[in-house]
Amino acid sequence: MRIIGIDPGLRHMGWGVIEATGSRLSHVANGTCVSRGDDLAERLLSLHQQLSAVFAQHAPDAAAVEQTFVNRDGAGTLKLGQARGIAMLVPAQAGLAVAEYAPNAVKKAVVGVGHADKRQVEHMVKLQLPGCQPAGSDAADALAIAICHSFHAASAGRLAAAIGAGR
Amino acid sequence: MRIIGIDPGLRHMGWGVIEATGSRLSHVANGTCVSRGDDLAERLLSLHQQLSAVFAQHAPDAAAVEQTFVNRDGAGTLKLGQARGIAMLVPAQAGLAVAEYAPNAVKKAVVGVGHADKRQVEHMVKLQLPGCQPAGSDAADALAIAICHSFHAASAGRLAAAIGAGR
Repeated sequence: MRIIGIDPGLRHMGWGVIEATGSRLSHVANGTCVSRGDDLAERLLSLHQQLSAVFAQHAPDAAAVEQTFVNRDGAGTLKLGQARGIAMLVPAQAGLAVAEYAPNAVKKAVVGVGHADKRQVEHMVKLQLPGCQPAGSDAADALAIAICHSFHAASAGRLAAAIGAGR
Repeated sequence: MRIIGIDPGLRHMGWGVIEATGSRLSHVANGTCVSRGDDLAERLLSLHQQLSAVFAQHAPDAAAVEQTFVNRDGAGTLKLGQARGIAMLVPAQAGLAVAEYAPNAVKKAVVGVGHADKRQVEHMVKLQLPGCQPAGSDAADALAIAICHSFHAASAGRLAAAIGAGR
C-alpha cells in the first residue's frame, strides 16, 4: 500500500509518500508545496496544482491529513482551514478516502509520546524510513502522518482478520 | 460583464449569476450547492463538482466571494474555512480573479445600511433583479454579493476613465 501524508498550511504544505508492505515501511518521496501568487485564490490554486501533480506522479492508494489544532486566533484558523480544504479535496478527487489524525496521535505513533518536538519527529522518521531525507519540517511531519496511518491501517487489518477467524 | 457571487458554507453554498451592462443589472441564474457524503473530504469534493458545473454552464467573467466572519467558535471557523477554500479555488481554476467583500459591505451596497436582515437583502435583490426568484437565503446572499461587486467594478471603471481623461 502506498500512503501519502499531508501536513496542510497556506504557505507551505508538506507531503510525504511511503510504501507499506506488511509492517515493512519504505520511503518513496517527500517535499513541500509552496504557495505562489498575490492573493488568496491564486495561492490556493497553486497549492491545488502542485499537490495534484504529486498525486499524478506518485499515485498513492491511501491518504491521511493532519487534523488542525483550533486556537483562539480566528483569522489564522480560517487561513489554515482554506488550505486544509485543498489538502482534503485533492485526495478525494483521486478517489481516495481521507483519514485524519490529531498531531498528538501522529507523534505518539512515530515517537512513542504525544508531546515530542519537531526534531524528535524528524529523527524517528529517518530511522523508520532508511535513506529518507525530509525536505524540511513540514515534509517530515507529512511523512510522520503517513507512518501513523500505516500503523492504524495495519492494526485495522489485523483486527478484521481476527474477527474473521473467530467467526 | 457576467458576475458570479458565492456565499460559502460547508452544508449549503449559495451562488448567483447576474449580467451587468453599464449600470443595468439582470438576473441570469441562482441556486445552492448542497454538500453530499459522509465525511469531510467527500463533502468538499461534492461542493467542488457542483460549483465547477455552475461555472461550466454560466461562464462568468468575474467572481466575488463573501468574506467570512471569524468568531470564537474555532471549530466552526475551520469548517467554514475549508468550504471557503473550495469557493475560492473554483473561480481561480476558471482563470478569474476573486474579489472579497465583508457581509456589511454587501448589505450596505444592496440595502443601503450595513445591518440589514436577510429578508431586507432578499427584497432588495428581487427589486434590483426583476423576475428573479432566489432559491433560498444563501442564493439571495450570493446574488447580493454579485450586485455589490457590479457596483464596485462600475465605480472602479468610472475612476479609471476619470483618471484617464484628466491626463
